[in-house]
Amino acid sequence: MNLRAAADGLGLSPERMERMLGRVVRSSDWPLPRLLRFDKAVSGIEAGTVVFDNNEIVYGYPKIRRAMMLLPAIKRHFSDWVIVEEKMNGHNVRVAKVGKSVVALTRGGFICPYSTEVARDQIPTEIFRDHPDLVLCGEMVGPKNPYVPKEVYPTESMDFYLFDVSRKGKREMEGSSMTHATAEEYGIRSVRLFGEFGIDEAAEKIKEIIKDLGVRGREGVVIKDPANIAGPIKYTSSESNCRDLEFAFRYYSDYGQDFFFSRVVREGFQAAEWSDSEEEFIERCLRLGKSMLGPMRETVETKIEGRPIVQEVEIVVKDLQTATDFEEHLRRMGVRAIFDPPRTSPGGYLVKIKRLVMSTNDKTESVIGGQLW
Amino acid sequence: MNLRAAADGLGLSPERMERMLGRVVRSSDWPLPRLLRFDKAVSGIEAGTVVFDNNEIVYGYPKIRRAMMLLPAIKRHFSDWVIVEEKMNGHNVRVAKVGKSVVALTRGGFICPYSTEVARDQIPTEIFRDHPDLVLCGEMVGPKNPYVPKEVYPTESMDFYLFDVSRKGKREMEGSSMTHATAEEYGIRSVRLFGEFGIDEAAEKIKEIIKDLGVRGREGVVIKDPANIAGPIKYTSSESNCRDLEFAFRYYSDYGQDFFFSRVVREGFQAAEWSDSEEEFIERCLRLGKSMLGPMRETVETKIEGRPIVQEVEIVVKDLQTATDFEEHLRRMGVRAIFDPPRTSPGGYLVKIKRLVMSTNDKTESVIGGQLW
Repeated sequence: MNLRAAADGLGLSPERMERMLGRVVRSSDWPLPRLLRFDKAVSGIEAGTVVFDNNEIVYGYPKIRRAMMLLPAIKRHFSDWVIVEEKMNGHNVRVAKVGKSVVALTRGGFICPYSTEVARDQIPTEIFRDHPDLVLCGEMVGPKNPYVPKEVYPTESMDFYLFDVSRKGKREMEGSSMTHATAEEYGIRSVRLFGEFGIDEAAEKIKEIIKDLGVRGREGVVIKDPANIAGPIKYTSSESNCRDLEFAFRYYSDYGQDFFFSRVVREGFQAAEWSDSEEEFIERCLRLGKSMLGPMRETVETKIEGRPIVQEVEIVVKDLQTATDFEEHLRRMGVRAIFDPPRTSPGGYLVKIKRLVMSTNDKTESVIGGQLW
Repeated sequence: MNLRAAADGLGLSPERMERMLGRVVRSSDWPLPRLLRFDKAVSGIEAGTVVFDNNEIVYGYPKIRRAMMLLPAIKRHFSDWVIVEEKMNGHNVRVAKVGKSVVALTRGGFICPYSTEVARDQIPTEIFRDHPDLVLCGEMVGPKNPYVPKEVYPTESMDFYLFDVSRKGKREMEGSSMTHATAEEYGIRSVRLFGEFGIDEAAEKIKEIIKDLGVRGREGVVIKDPANIAGPIKYTSSESNCRDLEFAFRYYSDYGQDFFFSRVVREGFQAAEWSDSEEEFIERCLRLGKSMLGPMRETVETKIEGRPIVQEVEIVVKDLQTATDFEEHLRRMGVRAIFDPPRTSPGGYLVKIKRLVMSTNDKTESVIGGQLW
C-alpha cells in the first residue's frame, strides 16, 4: 500500500498519516482486499473510513444525531420541508466494489464476511459495472442478523435495505431521491419512504408514523432534508427504546451504563412532548420497568438454575467458508463465541452461535453466591 | 497543628503525611476547631477521617457493603446469629467533643454547622463529660434535613438517631449492644432494633421487615454481627430504591449514571430472590418506571413553562448565625444555593434554600430548544 497516496487522498500530510498508523489507523490484510481502517474519528475523517490497497477511499458513514423532542428539533434543524424514511434496526454496512470484489464494510470499517456474502447475493453486479465508484449504504436486517437479530422484517434470513448512496473518495451522501431512484433502477430493496412533509406538520405526522411503527415492532425514522443540505436526524419509538433495554438487561453487566440511561431519558422527553394521557403514561412506565426487570430477573433465575447466560444468534450462509470466515471475523473483533456445526437449511447452511457474556455470568454468579456489592 | 504528631497517631511516616497534605489530606480552619481531613481513603485510612488541632483523631465511618440477595449474603457473611437494625435515610454524622466544643462531622469529614447545632441541642453534654473520647455515629433525619429531606420520621425538623459508637483514635465500632445501652443511659434516640435472628430464618424475617418498612416510606435495614466481628451489611426496600430514583430523575443530568443503574439492578435481584408473583412483579415494574419517568416528565414540563429547575430544601435553626454558617459551608462544598431570608418559626428560624441544578437546567433547556443529542 502506498501510504503517501493514501494520505494524499485523505487530505493529510504523509508524516501525520505515518504517525497515526498503528494507533488510530489500523492496517488489515484479512479478509482481502488489504486496507487501512480509521478506528476513531480524526482530523474530520469519520471513524470507519477505509483506504483500500488500490488507494480508493470509502469514508465512514457519518453519525446521525438524535432528536430528543421532535417539534423543536425539526424547526431548528430544517427549513420548509422534510423527507421521512424508516430507520431499520440491524447493522449499518457500506457496500462497494474494490478491484474485482464487492465487499460489505461494517460501521467500524471491518469487512464482514457474512454481510459481504449477503451483499453479493442481493445486489446485482450491473450496478457496480455501471457505477464503479458507488458506495451503497444500507441496513442489514432480519432474524439471521447475528449482531441485531429481529423478527419484524419480511425475511427469514438477512436482507439488505439501501438508505443512502455515496461515492468512493466522497464524504457526502447523494440524497434521498438518488437513493430511491438507484434502488428502483437496479431492483434493490430500499428503506420505506413515508413522504415529504411541511415543517409545520412534520412533527405531528412523524408522531403518528412512530406510534404505528412502535406497535409493529419497528424502530423509528430518519428525517432528511430534501435539498440534502442539513444533515439527517433520527427519532425512535418507545417500544424500540424498551426492546433495546430488554435485550441489554439480559446481559446487564456487559453493557455500558450510558446505554441504559440514554434510553430512559428518551422516554422522559417523549412522554413530555406527546403529553401522554394518564393511561398512556402508566402504559409507558410499565413498559419501561418491565423491559429492565423482566430480562434481568430471567438472567438471575437462569443462573440460579445453574445454566450459563449466553447470547444465541444464528446465521444462514450459502458457502460454508463464509461461516468459517465469520468465526474468524468475530474472533478478530474480540467477541468470544462458540459456533455449532452447520446444518443444511433452506437457503444454505444454518449455524447457531453462542456468544459468551462473561461479565454478566461472573457478576450474577457471585451475587447469588452471597457476594456483596 | 503538629504534623508529626498527627502522622504518628495515624500510623504514617511524617514524610508520607507531608506528601499527602494538600492532595488527599486537606486542612481546614473554618469552622473551628482547625483540622486535617482525608478527602479519599489512603493507606487503610477511611475517607472522612479527621485529625483535630489537638491531635485527636476521628476515623471516617466505614462504608457498609450492600447485600444484593439477602439469603446467600447473610449465609456467606455471618455465623449463627444476626442483629437487624433500621437503616434510616438522612445523612451520616459523627459527633465528638473536641476541646470545649461538640461538633458534627459529615461523612466526608466536614464540620456541618447545621448538624452541629442539632447535635448540641439533642445530645446531653454529660455523655462527653463521662466519656470524653466517645464518637457518636448517627443519622440526621427529618423534613428539615437539607441533604436528604424526608417526611417519614416522627419529627417536624431534623433529629439525631444513634446507630454506632466509636472512640477517638479507634477505627472499630463498639457494637450494637453498646450503642443501644449508651442511647438508653443518656436519653439519646437510637435507630430501631428489630431483634436478633438465627442465620437460617434471618433472610425471611428481614424480607417481612423490609416489605413493611417499604410501605411506610422507610429505607431498609443494617444487619450486624452480635459478636461485632463480621462487618455490617445493608439492604433496602424497593420503595426506597424507587424514591431515590424519583428524586434523582427530577435532576436527571446532575446525577451519575451509576446512581440510576445500581438501583435498577437491585430491583432485578430482589424480584428474583423474592419470586414476585405476577401481580407483585407488575407493581414493581410500574413503580420503577414511574419513579424515573414521572419526575423527568415534570422537569421537562416545568422548563417548557419557562420555570427553572431547583431543589428546594429547608432548615430550621435556633441561632441565625447557624444559617449564615451553613450557607458558607455549602459554598465551600461547591454547592450553588440561594438562601431566602429567615422567617421565625416554631423552634427557631425557618430558612428556605434553593439549590441550583445547572446541568439539568441547561440540558433540558437545550433539548426543548431543539438541540440534538
